[in-house]
Amino acid sequence: MKILVTAFDPFGGEKTNPALEAVKALPSTIAGADIVKLEVPTVFGTSLAVVEAAMARELPDAVVSVGQAGGRFGITPERIAINLSDAPLEDNAGKAPVDEAVAAGGPAAYFSTLPVKAMVKALVDAGIPASLSNSAGTFVCNQLMYGVLHRVSRSHPGMLAGFIHVPCIPEQVVNKPNTPSMALADIVRGLTICLEAVRAAKHS
Amino acid sequence: MKILVTAFDPFGGEKTNPALEAVKALPSTIAGADIVKLEVPTVFGTSLAVVEAAMARELPDAVVSVGQAGGRFGITPERIAINLSDAPLEDNAGKAPVDEAVAAGGPAAYFSTLPVKAMVKALVDAGIPASLSNSAGTFVCNQLMYGVLHRVSRSHPGMLAGFIHVPCIPEQVVNKPNTPSMALADIVRGLTICLEAVRAAKHS
Amino acid sequence: MKILVTAFDPFGGEKTNPALEAVKALPSTIAGADIVKLEVPTVFGTSLAVVEAAMARELPDAVVSVGQAGGRFGITPERIAINLSDAPLEDNAGKAPVDEAVAAGGPAAYFSTLPVKAMVKALVDAGIPASLSNSAGTFVCNQLMYGVLHRVSRSHPGMLAGFIHVPCIPEQVVNKPNTPSMALADIVRGLTICLEAVRAAKHS
Amino acid sequence: MKILVTAFDPFGGEKTNPALEAVKALPSTIAGADIVKLEVPTVFGTSLAVVEAAMARELPDAVVSVGQAGGRFGITPERIAINLSDAPLEDNAGKAPVDEAVAAGGPAAYFSTLPVKAMVKALVDAGIPASLSNSAGTFVCNQLMYGVLHRVSRSHPGMLAGFIHVPCIPEQVVNKPNTPSMALADIVRGLTICLEAVRAAKHS
Repeated sequence: MKILVTAFDPFGGEKTNPALEAVKALPSTIAGADIVKLEVPTVFGTSLAVVEAAMARELPDAVVSVGQAGGRFGITPERIAINLSDAPLEDNAGKAPVDEAVAAGGPAAYFSTLPVKAMVKALVDAGIPASLSNSAGTFVCNQLMYGVLHRVSRSHPGMLAGFIHVPCIPEQVVNKPNTPSMALADIVRGLTICLEAVRAAKHS
Repeated sequence: MKILVTAFDPFGGEKTNPALEAVKALPSTIAGADIVKLEVPTVFGTSLAVVEAAMARELPDAVVSVGQAGGRFGITPERIAINLSDAPLEDNAGKAPVDEAVAAGGPAAYFSTLPVKAMVKALVDAGIPASLSNSAGTFVCNQLMYGVLHRVSRSHPGMLAGFIHVPCIPEQVVNKPNTPSMALADIVRGLTICLEAVRAAKHS
Repeated sequence: MKILVTAFDPFGGEKTNPALEAVKALPSTIAGADIVKLEVPTVFGTSLAVVEAAMARELPDAVVSVGQAGGRFGITPERIAINLSDAPLEDNAGKAPVDEAVAAGGPAAYFSTLPVKAMVKALVDAGIPASLSNSAGTFVCNQLMYGVLHRVSRSHPGMLAGFIHVPCIPEQVVNKPNTPSMALADIVRGLTICLEAVRAAKHS
Repeated sequence: MKILVTAFDPFGGEKTNPALEAVKALPSTIAGADIVKLEVPTVFGTSLAVVEAAMARELPDAVVSVGQAGGRFGITPERIAINLSDAPLEDNAGKAPVDEAVAAGGPAAYFSTLPVKAMVKALVDAGIPASLSNSAGTFVCNQLMYGVLHRVSRSHPGMLAGFIHVPCIPEQVVNKPNTPSMALADIVRGLTICLEAVRAAKHS
């Protein structure tokens, strides 16, 4: 089994992206599955193109994209991606689409095909704060999640796909009062647990 | 130099107290200062008696008490203790005083004599979320902080004293939505930094 | 022009539902549009049946459903409804579906056809805290929003439809620390502004 | 009976101060007590001098100072004022003292002599979100509360004094996400309830 794990580069003025740091720190094999890591630019369109190319090249069994969600208290697998980009800030190429479809003519939304509830249960059982999220927002993260699921539906039947948001790490929030964070080691441990759940889902 | 570091046992139905776990994990020497550790029951009166006995026995240069403050996002050195106990929940002996003085006839408050601003600066510089707190509450934590400073003022001139609140650790909040936490390793690192600041203050 | 405005009865142990109280207090005409009010039980299935019957009977130009969202700080028009019911608590009939489709075979989601951005802008311009929401949750509110839009798509082409969540009112939160609220008068004023925006959208 | 009620002018870039607007809207008599209103500049030192002059001139039975506390969810009578000014922002004269005593040689703190618990109970009973606060901060509000209580202790024995913080009003927070607010009418009603409690306390 092969899992493609993608992570965005830093955006929004941050020097680091905990999603990227955590994915870099993952082992190359988890529960027997090969982990293929991919850094993705936080840019509308380009991010999706980069991941679509890797999907075609690697033909993974699952695509798990990881991104930072500042303000969240735990690891949050996303339940659904919507066909809408409405950027609250500029991406790393200065683009900020307003009320644009991710895919013209595409369905309104795609549900994650990852085992999101099993992930959350396994995280909580391991003592890691986690909950399901019903919105991946309308920035590049949602665009990538929607775009990957749209690509799967047209070109890669049976490939699992979805998105996991992670909190900021402590050093990002020292000057942001009342902003939650999670240690990088716990994010790495949490993503590992999520990928074990993906592995188990594919087998069952 | 010798620093007495106290930590409360678990309370309020929790199975663990991050303050206690972190203090247990501290090294026995920090920046050349001997660290004397003391577990303290979360009980009004008893907690203070236990610490006063240790102060008399150990004659430390400084007393640093550490407690858990659920809901806080970072490590928060306390600026002041007030002469009031007004328990929002029962202590571990079932006591819940209402609007009682910590020390009848004592002053309304004592300021911490620890280098609280230096601590916060050092924590933030090290990437650990931290801020000054202006209230240690009206539960056992405040009672101990006030009581220790009151004892210092009467019996131990020159002994530094104060209190540091730490957040919950992740496993405590998995079933408490939107509650911040901090990894135990970061709390240990943070307390070490605080004790280095105490050491530096005593020297200057 | 005629607007059907629906509101849920109290649920989750509350004695009041600010959505219902606010809708009751709306005038019978707003900006020339007739306002038809409908109280809806907070029950999966039944709620939708009641509103579908009113849609068929009244043939309104727009259906605006209103519900309570505890924990929100402002009035939040919902952007999208998803084809999923996953109840975090029991509805008023004791039902709590887990991961069920609202409409088997229906699309994954429907976007609101109300002028949600115009609503938010008008609310903020009027000094009322407001923002767009990207998730109506997975309880009865989302089920109704999805169900109404699904019914519109099959039976009532051109009928506008969508959902607005409102905060708790102050008396609901006196024993819930750190929970935001909004005065009923401001909710009424806010809904009136939203309905004016619906009226304007239908005309343009 | 006569109650001097003070309120600060707008500060921190705000165009309005809900404390001032609410105090202006109070009736001139509450429960038989004459209400003397005083607008106070948000300036260290000057604010206290203005109130001390009014205390000497009016010789009220009680001084109730009111200020804005952005971020609070309810009306919060303050329990204690501390002998420390440590400004997180500049006052309206550009002053920002760091770690200065309010009164050199004064006690570390003064407890409010208003019936703070009776106030909170009466507010909650009336459906208005409220709680006790254990910190008035270290800005001009705390300085005024401390200064007035210090003046009372030296010159006006038996005069009641204390401070009440109120939340922002809705129009102040429309561009501040996740910031709580309270309708001006509810703040006015809440302050009236607090002043009734002061009246009752003076009589008992």
